[in-house]
Amino acid sequence: MREAYHDQLGELADQLASMCAMVGDAMEQATKALLDADLAVAERVISGDAKIDDARAKCEEDAYSLLALQAPVATDLRTVLSVIHAAESLERMGDLALHVAKAARRRHPAAVLPEEVRGYFSEMGRIAVDLARKAQEVIRTQDVELARRLDDEDDAMDDLHRHLFSVIMDKEWTHGVPSAVDITLLGRFYERFGDHAVSVAKRTVFVVTGRMPGYASGGDDL
Amino acid sequence: MREAYHDQLGELADQLASMCAMVGDAMEQATKALLDADLAVAERVISGDAKIDDARAKCEEDAYSLLALQAPVATDLRTVLSVIHAAESLERMGDLALHVAKAARRRHPAAVLPEEVRGYFSEMGRIAVDLARKAQEVIRTQDVELARRLDDEDDAMDDLHRHLFSVIMDKEWTHGVPSAVDITLLGRFYERFGDHAVSVAKRTVFVVTGRMPGYASGGDDL
Repeated sequence: MREAYHDQLGELADQLASMCAMVGDAMEQATKALLDADLAVAERVISGDAKIDDARAKCEEDAYSLLALQAPVATDLRTVLSVIHAAESLERMGDLALHVAKAARRRHPAAVLPEEVRGYFSEMGRIAVDLARKAQEVIRTQDVELARRLDDEDDAMDDLHRHLFSVIMDKEWTHGVPSAVDITLLGRFYERFGDHAVSVAKRTVFVVTGRMPGYASGGDDL
Repeated sequence: MREAYHDQLGELADQLASMCAMVGDAMEQATKALLDADLAVAERVISGDAKIDDARAKCEEDAYSLLALQAPVATDLRTVLSVIHAAESLERMGDLALHVAKAARRRHPAAVLPEEVRGYFSEMGRIAVDLARKAQEVIRTQDVELARRLDDEDDAMDDLHRHLFSVIMDKEWTHGVPSAVDITLLGRFYERFGDHAVSVAKRTVFVVTGRMPGYASGGDDL
């Protein structure tokens, strides 16, 4: 019974890790579509989102089966519930990558981003993808220290996000309101993606240590 | 055992219903703070958010206890998991009301909203509060038809949200980029609040019918 439980739990962790890879790739491609105004890449991200939704549905179903068949208690129960929460965050990360790709498609063949802010999105994209991949590593290794470092990296994302606002709100901004609106929403998509990646890693730490570091929904202060 | 289970489940439903009332009130007050540039009201919403977070933590803890003690299976298991998901959505709705209140505080004593968009926010606020209260009613009555009607009301919210963008992106817009950025984010907070309210109601329908109507994260298409 215990062995079957641990096998199934390991299987769930593999599914979560694979979802991290999927959403990291989706955000990497979405950022490329955004920076290069590449419609084909945007379309691939958009059509690929259903696979992430399916992966979440399967992960949730398997977690439900495990709960129903093994009826775990105490820490084991919390572990399985953490998997369900993490899968929800990961699906949401996929949605956010989808939103970025849709923004690229909506403005195509025009570029969404004026030159002044390209660097910000290039860097926020890099951090977002890195956060997803590090969350994957935390799931695989259960490395509590690495999970803590994700918080620092997410702080860098939040700093970029704040600076981005100062750029578009500056008197020198010549690209008008529609562009500022696009950038405001896009900035928020990256920032929320980072928050969810941190939340996934924190849930894994919780599973390892039995204590939730800080609170999972933090960072979203705007 | 079954009776204890149903008592505890009824207790969880009461907690969810009470959270609906709390987040509905928070959004009502936050909208008032926004429309009237009322700092005292904004501060009350901001300091009141901790109570919503606590209510979610208690609801989740009680749901965990119920799972651990009663080890429900099949529909019963899904019901308890739906409660956990709904509580998460409700906490997030509280966060979104908090963001609205913080926007009002950030610009005080200036008003955040130019005259042209006040009507939009007044109406989006009304719908948001109504959605939270109807979600509460769905939890209390398990009225599947009412849950379906929430979807239509949320469509009205999405329409307002889209029109709002056409107002701020119009060439006649004279309030500049900073104001457009505030309005973009605020519009999104209301729209997401509505999505979560619908998701809470849908989870309740799921509990009653055993089938999830559509998909819980829908509507967030921008």
